[in-house]
Amino acid sequence: MFVQKLLQEIKSKGNSCVVGLDPTLEMMPDKLKRKYLLKGSMEEIAQMFWEFNKTIIDYTSELTPCIKVQIAFYERYGLPGLEVFYKTLDYGKKKGLMTIADVKRGDIGSTAKAYAQGFLTNSSIDSITVNPYFGSDGLLPFVEETKGGEKGLFILVKTSNPSSKELQDLKTEDGQFIYEKVADLVSSFAGDYTEFSHIGSVVGGTHREHLKRLREKLKGFILVPGYGAQGGKGEDIKYAFNSQGYGALVCSSRGITEHYKKIGEENYGLAAKISLEMMIEDINREIEKGVK
Amino acid sequence: MFVQKLLQEIKSKGNSCVVGLDPTLEMMPDKLKRKYLLKGSMEEIAQMFWEFNKTIIDYTSELTPCIKVQIAFYERYGLPGLEVFYKTLDYGKKKGLMTIADVKRGDIGSTAKAYAQGFLTNSSIDSITVNPYFGSDGLLPFVEETKGGEKGLFILVKTSNPSSKELQDLKTEDGQFIYEKVADLVSSFAGDYTEFSHIGSVVGGTHREHLKRLREKLKGFILVPGYGAQGGKGEDIKYAFNSQGYGALVCSSRGITEHYKKIGEENYGLAAKISLEMMIEDINREIEKGVK
Repeated sequence: MFVQKLLQEIKSKGNSCVVGLDPTLEMMPDKLKRKYLLKGSMEEIAQMFWEFNKTIIDYTSELTPCIKVQIAFYERYGLPGLEVFYKTLDYGKKKGLMTIADVKRGDIGSTAKAYAQGFLTNSSIDSITVNPYFGSDGLLPFVEETKGGEKGLFILVKTSNPSSKELQDLKTEDGQFIYEKVADLVSSFAGDYTEFSHIGSVVGGTHREHLKRLREKLKGFILVPGYGAQGGKGEDIKYAFNSQGYGALVCSSRGITEHYKKIGEENYGLAAKISLEMMIEDINREIEKGVK
Repeated sequence: MFVQKLLQEIKSKGNSCVVGLDPTLEMMPDKLKRKYLLKGSMEEIAQMFWEFNKTIIDYTSELTPCIKVQIAFYERYGLPGLEVFYKTLDYGKKKGLMTIADVKRGDIGSTAKAYAQGFLTNSSIDSITVNPYFGSDGLLPFVEETKGGEKGLFILVKTSNPSSKELQDLKTEDGQFIYEKVADLVSSFAGDYTEFSHIGSVVGGTHREHLKRLREKLKGFILVPGYGAQGGKGEDIKYAFNSQGYGALVCSSRGITEHYKKIGEENYGLAAKISLEMMIEDINREIEKGVK
């Protein structure tokens, strides 16, 4: 079951940090560019991303419980890119990691079902992210394909970008914010769990107040993107955890994978590991200080 | 430019109907199943979808100005499926059709940029659908990659599914509905056009009142899914058009591609064509009656 496996990984690794694998051309070390970019084809770029991802996973898989792979950065390079997206998730699995495919899909019922089958039923991916704009009948097919908890979902509630306020922070007639309405929707699917539900949510790491309020409301794991590069800080993010220090996943992508730019590209895998170690220390220290 | 080419196609074909290519196993004629489904592999299914799509396009490309291809139904079958998704769009283009990739992507800025480059800049696809939940900084990268009108966007405003009301019809403090707020956001990107903007929207065909109100507000094309199978009727959908009978695209998927089930599968391509002819007649008659 998704939540049990996730908690087991978190406990054995001693942290709730997630390595995000969102490769871009600008992110690649020069030595990889020299090795792969001969004609600049999509195939070459995809092959380069594959070596990069594998190296990052090899260096971080003993530390991190989970990887998150954002499909946009692969889809950008067509089918060769998408092949590396799936291969990366498979490789993470093989290394014993939990996997999140960050695909943010959302559509009407029959289409949502097709997405859910593709990413959950017909694949080894553990969990995906989902967009709630269609309401409950667009979410239900995803919930169904989790098969009562074998797989997990993370439904967007409050995103980390500045403009998220334009829609998500609108106040409705009854005084609730839109993102709270979405949180209610998420809770309605989360069922009656004594520990954590497999129906989780996504809440940006830049909103301490939101994290506080939503941690009380939500029964599932909260996936918090935006640590580091997007401005999320441990002292805010800790509010996504419960008083025992569980129930959130904190993700950093560029902060980890581009850390080599600060200390030299000779060993970009080791640089990623060092950055992850610092992140784990920061988050664990903040959790330990407690939620005041 | 996207809008000019689209209007040209609409005028030369004499209609604003769109053929949706959303293949499922259940949709396939028995003779294709017998031909392709030997082991039931993803490759076989994808190859079957490809023959099906090609046949539908061959039979309908002289009538329809545009095809819409919903990626979920291809992604469900992994990389072989996605290959057919891209091939179908290419084949439509080769047959002179305008193309909509129905991908409903939405994410924060840097990720949205990756999606926009993949589907707009690095491909021959004419337009895509986009989800607005992130607000303007999640939409802007898509707008930018349309390069001032070379490509088109359709931003979700009000969807056709029953639960769309749960979020989209919530009333905000100032008395506006969420979907109207989204429409304002769409308008803010649409620029100052004398004819139609390339920044369009998606409004479900099941909501006459919404279509009326939004046609006045929106400067771009309105993509109306849900004709036929999802319950949208010509008498409602006509409100998406302006008084000259332009400015909307009406899409039917299963209504067209599954029509053979009513008249025999011997020639499912011809059946699709017949269904499309009936749809065109219905929509054009309603437009002619005018918007009363």
